[in-house]
This record gives sequence, structure tokens and C-alpha cells, in this order.
Amino acid sequence: MSRIAYMDYNATAPVFPSVAHAMSTAIAHVGNPSSVHRLGREARAMIEEARESVADLVNVPRDWVIFTSGGTEADALVLKGCSCERVLVSAVEHAAVLKVRDDAEILPVDGNGIVDLNALEAALKQDNRSTLVSVVGANNETGVIEPIGEIVEIAHRYGALVHCDAVQMAGKCAFDVSALDLDFASLSSHKIGGPQGVGALVRREGLKLDAMFKGGGQERSMRGGTENLSGIVGFGAAAREKVNFVEIEALRDDLERQVKALGAVVFGDQVKRLPNTSYFALVGMPSDRQVMALDLANVMVSAGSACSSGKVKASHVLKAMKIEDDVANCAIRISLGWNSSKEDVEMFVQAWKKLVERVQAKQTKSNAA
Amino acid sequence: MSRIAYMDYNATAPVFPSVAHAMSTAIAHVGNPSSVHRLGREARAMIEEARESVADLVNVPRDWVIFTSGGTEADALVLKGCSCERVLVSAVEHAAVLKVRDDAEILPVDGNGIVDLNALEAALKQDNRSTLVSVVGANNETGVIEPIGEIVEIAHRYGALVHCDAVQMAGKCAFDVSALDLDFASLSSHKIGGPQGVGALVRREGLKLDAMFKGGGQERSMRGGTENLSGIVGFGAAAREKVNFVEIEALRDDLERQVKALGAVVFGDQVKRLPNTSYFALVGMPSDRQVMALDLANVMVSAGSACSSGKVKASHVLKAMKIEDDVANCAIRISLGWNSSKEDVEMFVQAWKKLVERVQAKQTKSNAA
Repeated sequence: MSRIAYMDYNATAPVFPSVAHAMSTAIAHVGNPSSVHRLGREARAMIEEARESVADLVNVPRDWVIFTSGGTEADALVLKGCSCERVLVSAVEHAAVLKVRDDAEILPVDGNGIVDLNALEAALKQDNRSTLVSVVGANNETGVIEPIGEIVEIAHRYGALVHCDAVQMAGKCAFDVSALDLDFASLSSHKIGGPQGVGALVRREGLKLDAMFKGGGQERSMRGGTENLSGIVGFGAAAREKVNFVEIEALRDDLERQVKALGAVVFGDQVKRLPNTSYFALVGMPSDRQVMALDLANVMVSAGSACSSGKVKASHVLKAMKIEDDVANCAIRISLGWNSSKEDVEMFVQAWKKLVERVQAKQTKSNAA
Repeated sequence: MSRIAYMDYNATAPVFPSVAHAMSTAIAHVGNPSSVHRLGREARAMIEEARESVADLVNVPRDWVIFTSGGTEADALVLKGCSCERVLVSAVEHAAVLKVRDDAEILPVDGNGIVDLNALEAALKQDNRSTLVSVVGANNETGVIEPIGEIVEIAHRYGALVHCDAVQMAGKCAFDVSALDLDFASLSSHKIGGPQGVGALVRREGLKLDAMFKGGGQERSMRGGTENLSGIVGFGAAAREKVNFVEIEALRDDLERQVKALGAVVFGDQVKRLPNTSYFALVGMPSDRQVMALDLANVMVSAGSACSSGKVKASHVLKAMKIEDDVANCAIRISLGWNSSKEDVEMFVQAWKKLVERVQAKQTKSNAA
């Protein structure tokens, strides 16, 4: 089999060997974590150990962590379950946040996709109902990091609660829920080298929340149903891994330098971004054609968000950033992680260069015509 | 390590070797099932193969299967998401059904825990709002099988929809959603030798349902969020296993004969039951004391439902069956499965006999006093 350059970590990251190992131990363990007997109690202990690791990752007490089936469920749990009468979300949120409440009010962003803090303050000032502000920590497409600390400061001044969808941020750069003074945060396992299908909602002690499903009262009655034992154990193991993001950032910067030299239009590179993400357009070739051509060259990238059931459509993030359609429709995202290498970057650049040449050849031809 | 007799399959079953194997392959696979590139499409294919296996298990078209994080979520999805104005549930439902809607009307059961069909018909007759009837297929504590076919027949006559919580039934005895003409059914992976944290809602084609979380539109927009790839693949592998329940029933019957001879009060043994379950009381010794004493003898059993976060409380199922408290509080459940053996039964009977003797000794002493 030929070498594959996997450069789609923001869609899902390969699991760490430690995660696969921890999961296989959990899969072999027999016992429902709610069972009273010894095997049940052992399963419970495995979950609590993972809870501790996830809590440590974002610097909160263990009790703040509610395990869910992923970031999407965590987002829905807080947006539906918090007792706020009103929800403000940014225009660049993931669909997991954007689609929860029809009555959500949308906050505009600037050309880099950063939330307009004046608009936030104005929205809070004009309406004194209880409010939840939900803003993504780092954008899944651009990697741009939102000013969460400032958002919390403004929101708390008006008595509003703040939720941060930190699915792409936690584990990729500093994300300290306590230091940020956040009320809620959503986390995902599979974006940081844990398994798919598990995540968590972090909730500040004492904040009211209605469960979506209660069942047997698991997760302190916040999320019923027998726990995903192997998934949670895998998430815990991933949370304990230390990744060298300085190296990853160097790879990303190297790649970006090369694609810029080839004429790429890069998004969000003038502001604080995740160290692993680069989002750029090759004007003249639609995103999906690039993704498929790169796939044939054994290079796996994404046309923005993966989470649309295999369909590539214009990015609402780039739209909110007021990027013209003919540029936005030609954007691809590369995202790196713990197992990325120089070879991946080389394979990408080599393959993408051919696409650039194809576009140039076409332009020369049409200019000549 | 000494041999452990695991007799708590209704709480959670050990995973089949085939499941562990399939899961480790899925864990090693890199790719989000929604990604457009090859690795994403391969992940998608793994999910669709599992969907086919689960659909086959209950004889429905593949498209009827919506993967969830387990039976509890499936129950909540249909009870909250179906467009019915009114919900009728039996008194012996699992908490996953009982706790979803505060406005659910409760149908009484007889002394064996079987739904009162006259009460069902009367309830449907007196109110012509759109109605969902939700009845468990086989009770998790007693194993008693409800007359789902008759319930469907009555309900459909009045234009009501029927949901069956088949978490304990599917994969343990014949359960054919199409033949039963059911509208919805909940399934769970970990009750049949798959991993914990995955299940499915089976929905008849065309029936309206509101998603609890939409996210990226996965599961045909019925259940958003990146799929639990390894969990779903494990569920599929478990669904493909063929278990010899005739042998399991013989083990159960053998055990039951022996405990009856020792004075056990057995519940539900006069009606159709799951082949793997026995639920009985040793009057004079509370359930939790039996569970713990058996645990010390390396025998793992349950005091009814495991799903109450490690707390043992009086069974609402036995209460609904009008079993006196002094009997109900002394009930334990044994439940067998694919890896159960004669040795397990022997270990159980030997250990339980000692508890019987302890109770008898105490009674003799108190009679003598």
C-alpha cells in the first residue's frame, strides 16, 4: 500500500497507541458501571479515572465533567438544557450549535471571523432576559481563536452565562476553563486522538441544567444511559497525551509558506489561530475537485467542515467573513496533528502544485482563446 | 485469580471475541465517516455494513435503523421526537422510558407484569388525540415478555403508533419488527455482546421524528454528531453472532429448579419469559446483602435493574406486580448469556445455598428465643 498523507485532523484525528491499548482493556472488561458488584465497581473506577484526566485537560474539578456521545450532544445539552430564555451565538459556530435553537440570535463576525464584541454588548444591553452566549473556541475551518476571555468578561457583566464549543481548541492549545471563567464548555474525544462517539460537557458547579435523557440517573442525572465505557476510557487516555504543537505549527507554517508562494489565498492567518490548521483557496478550482484530486495522490484533506454527510457546500464560515463566493468555493483545509510529518507536507505540496499548474494552464488557454 | 461466575448479562454482556476484533480494526482506522476522501468513505462503509447487520437482526430495511448512543437515547428520541400529543407507557417500563415525559399515562399490569390490554383499549378509546404507546418487549428484571403483537393490533385499530423498548429482547429471542408491525423499536448493543454506549432506534419508513441534536446532519438528520465508529462496528458484529439460547435456557431452568427447591420465590415463571433470566427472592435477606455476599463468593448478580448509579432500591416492577415489600426487597436477578456455563450455575447455587442456610439459622434462633 502506498503511503497516505492524512491531513484532516480537524475532521478526526488518528487514535494514539495508548488510546487503542486502553480501549482494548476496557472492551475486555465485563461489567456495567452501575452494577453493585465488584466488576461493576471496577468499570465505574475506569470511568472516574478518565473523568479526572479530562477535567485536568481543561483545569476544572472532576465533578464538572459530564460525559456525552460527543461535542454535538454536549452543545445540544447546554443550549437546550440551560434555563436561559435567550441564546446568542456567533455566525461562525459549528452546525452542532447553530442548529439547536431556532430562536438563537446571531452575532456578526469581522473579516477574520472574530465575533464583534460591540455587537455582543449591544445585544446584552438591549434585552435583560436570562441569556446564554455560545461562542466557538477555535473555528473548525479556519482555526481562528475567538476572544473567549473578553466575551466572558462582557457577558458576566450583564449577568449572562457563557458556553464555549471548545471541540477544536481543547488539547490543541491552552484552554483553561477555570482561568477563562467559563460557565460551560463542550469537548470532543476524536479531535484529540481519542475515539469517535464520545465527548463531554463541562459545567460549572451549581449551574442548572435539564437532562435530555435521564434513564438510570447516570452522570449525576445529567445524562442517562449506560456509559460508553471503552469510549470514555479512550477519551481519558487521549486527554493524558502531551502533543508537541510547536513542531506541528512549524510544519503548518512551512506548508503555508509554500502554498502562498504558489498563489494560495489564506484565511485567518493575520490573527491568532490553532497551530495545526491552514485554510486556503486555489481560485479557479472548486474545493471538491481539489479534495478528490488530492485523494488520488494519497493526500487526505477537507473542503472545510466534514460534518455534512459527505456533501461539500459553500462554507457558512467564509460567508460570514464576507469572502466572495468564487474564492470561498475553492477553499480547502489542511489540519495536522500528533502523527504528522515533513513527508506529509511534501506530499501535499507536490500534489497541490500540480493542481495549481492545471489552473494556470487553463487560464493561459482561455486567455489565448 | 479465582474464577468469576458472571451472571449479570441483562446489566451488560461480555463482548464477543468477534466484536473486540472488529472494534480494534475500527479504532485503528483513520477517517471521519462524513469526510469526502477515501478514508472517510471507508469509515462510512463500515457503518453501513453494521447498519445492515442490525437491520437484519430485527428484520427491517437498513434505512429504518438510526444509530444512537444506546437504548436510553433511542427511547428519549422517540418519546420526545414523535409528533404524538399523548403517550401511554406501561408501569413496568425501564426508567429510560418512564422518565422521558412527565405527561405519560401509565398502563397497569397484572401479577406477572403483563400489560392490561383492556386498560390499553379503554385509554385509546376515551381520547382521540394522536397517541404513542410504548411498551417494553421483555422486562429487564423479570424477563417477562409482553404481548407486543396484540398491543400493536389494538393500538393501530385506534390509529395510535407503537414503540417497543426491545433492549432486552432483540437478540435473545425472536423479535421481528416487521412481523410485529411495530412503528418504533429501541435496541442496545451491550445487552447482546456488543460494546456499551451504542444502540439504535428503529423507525418505520416515513414516520415523522424530530431529532434531539442535528449537528452535521448524520443519520439522515435524525441524530447529528460524528458517529461512534468503533461502537457501531462492534454493535454490527454482535448482531451477526448466533447464540444458542436453548442451551442457555436449560442452564437457567436447572438453576431455577435448584433455587426453588431451596425455597426461592420466583417471579414471572408462569408466563413467557426470556430464556436467560431468573428473578427470585430469598425472603429474609435483603437484595443488596445477597448481591454483596455472592460477590465475595465470586458470583456476580444483580438486585434487579443495574441502572440506578449503584444504588439498590425497591423495584418498581415488582411493586407494579403487587409483590409485597418484604418479598420484593429480597429479590435478586440472575441473567445468563453466550459465555455462561454449568460451572457458573454450580458456583451460584453453592454460594446461594449458604445464604439460605444463614437465613434459616437466624429464623431457628429467633423461633427458639
